[in-house]
Amino acid sequence: MSLLVVGSVAFDAVRTPQGSVERMVGGSATYFALAASYFTQVRVVGVVGEDFEEKHHQVFRDRGVCTEGLERVSGKTFFWSGEYSPDMNDRRTLDTQLNVFATFQPKLPAHYRQTPFLFLGNIDPELQSSVQRQMVSPQLVAGDTMNFWIEGKRAELEVTLRNMNLLIINDSEARLLSGEYNLAKAARVIRALGPHTVVIKRGDNGASMFQEDEVFSVPALPLEEVHDPTGAGDSFGGGFMGYLVSHSTEGNSTGRNFFRRAVIYGSVMGSFAVERFGLERLRHLSRPEIEARFEEFRKLTRFE
Amino acid sequence: MSLLVVGSVAFDAVRTPQGSVERMVGGSATYFALAASYFTQVRVVGVVGEDFEEKHHQVFRDRGVCTEGLERVSGKTFFWSGEYSPDMNDRRTLDTQLNVFATFQPKLPAHYRQTPFLFLGNIDPELQSSVQRQMVSPQLVAGDTMNFWIEGKRAELEVTLRNMNLLIINDSEARLLSGEYNLAKAARVIRALGPHTVVIKRGDNGASMFQEDEVFSVPALPLEEVHDPTGAGDSFGGGFMGYLVSHSTEGNSTGRNFFRRAVIYGSVMGSFAVERFGLERLRHLSRPEIEARFEEFRKLTRFE
Repeated sequence: MSLLVVGSVAFDAVRTPQGSVERMVGGSATYFALAASYFTQVRVVGVVGEDFEEKHHQVFRDRGVCTEGLERVSGKTFFWSGEYSPDMNDRRTLDTQLNVFATFQPKLPAHYRQTPFLFLGNIDPELQSSVQRQMVSPQLVAGDTMNFWIEGKRAELEVTLRNMNLLIINDSEARLLSGEYNLAKAARVIRALGPHTVVIKRGDNGASMFQEDEVFSVPALPLEEVHDPTGAGDSFGGGFMGYLVSHSTEGNSTGRNFFRRAVIYGSVMGSFAVERFGLERLRHLSRPEIEARFEEFRKLTRFE
Repeated sequence: MSLLVVGSVAFDAVRTPQGSVERMVGGSATYFALAASYFTQVRVVGVVGEDFEEKHHQVFRDRGVCTEGLERVSGKTFFWSGEYSPDMNDRRTLDTQLNVFATFQPKLPAHYRQTPFLFLGNIDPELQSSVQRQMVSPQLVAGDTMNFWIEGKRAELEVTLRNMNLLIINDSEARLLSGEYNLAKAARVIRALGPHTVVIKRGDNGASMFQEDEVFSVPALPLEEVHDPTGAGDSFGGGFMGYLVSHSTEGNSTGRNFFRRAVIYGSVMGSFAVERFGLERLRHLSRPEIEARFEEFRKLTRFE
């Protein structure tokens, strides 16, 4: 089983209280793909510029991620620069250069079209819909969005949502999209727009998953050392979807516990992401490390 | 086994987006006592004025709470008035009239001095210490504090903390007291000041408990209807302590699961408190309702 992700591949410059990096490979599709790569075969659809060199491609190859759908065009790669507040709970964007991303038109290689699982990163909802149209009867369509599209392309986003089974967004996006501050109400409103499952990421307050007759919540792992929160949410998405895909052929793949375990694997990958700058931690994990952290979540939350 | 709580008994006026109440019995010791009363025998030490009538005392009596330590003096009862923001995550104090509380000097009735479990509400740390001195070798001393004392009476608070086994505070208080934003670090700093257990309440983000080699976190129950957040934290404390006291003679009273269950019962009582205005919900609960909600927390958090 394989998983297709479409979204941004970028260079990031990041400053946090723990240090700074002037230029490193980033982008939401990158974090997602690397996190998911520990669970399943991942294909990336995105665009990079001429400055995206062989060594940068290696970030994907080292994790066995297929980059055939990563188009390389003339111009420069999407660049984002940001600075985190002392408590790391807020960040300020210092610079955004869309570059080749400004004219991105996702084109799926022919053999990508039958990928059973699709994740639509938080790109323009019109591009999300274009990808949906290029796919041949996917088994599950999941996605993300962001405040910029919720405010600026609401109608187009609602079209995309109608054909989405699962939405993974953060709490402020859920509030903006639904018009409800209360997250239980927000999830109910969003589910009425299409997705049967809404996963709400709450940063260092954990995550909650809302389904028809089910709510599941997990707190965040209380980490003493957070180096760089960039990509934590995308890594959550990658862990969540990666687990879903890798276990989707098992008997209880629609069961309650199946989706709950996916939330935990999402939380696991998010917690790894923030421990080092950029992709550093996500590039060099092992399955035993991932399983050990899964057990940490069990220890953190279990009571009899 | 019985539990002594010292703290404020007040009249509250509260406005929330769900409605308003002009005058009702409140105060942190009141919420604490009522929540704890479902688990154990509770004794209240506090002060009220002449306006605190027989019908107001009935709030305690109906729940079997002993008010022999609730001194009645000439003057008016402590009055607090506040208004919650539309999302209920912030509140603004409209009026505070300390009245008889301004000169409160807790005096324990003779037979209260050997109460095995003590909870020091968030009063002046000098008064907390005075209560500690009046007690005869309590089995466990727990307490709370608030930003006003952390900033204004730091040295006195540190004296109180040295003789406290368990501190139950909210996240902003933990950050201010420790000088650390990160809650895992904050708990470590606070534990070094005295308490072996630090429970950090995070409002609608749940609660975390830090012990020597243990962390336990529970998310909040996603409630769609919140009428009045007043007293939720105090009700958490009452549920937590009430459970500890009622089960302290059992074999595994020092075990890991014992304290974890206390956090859940605290969360249960906090979740009930916010469902109605003031004490309304806490006055008329039943043990089956409490146990059913305990099971809701299990359903919310359990994965295999």
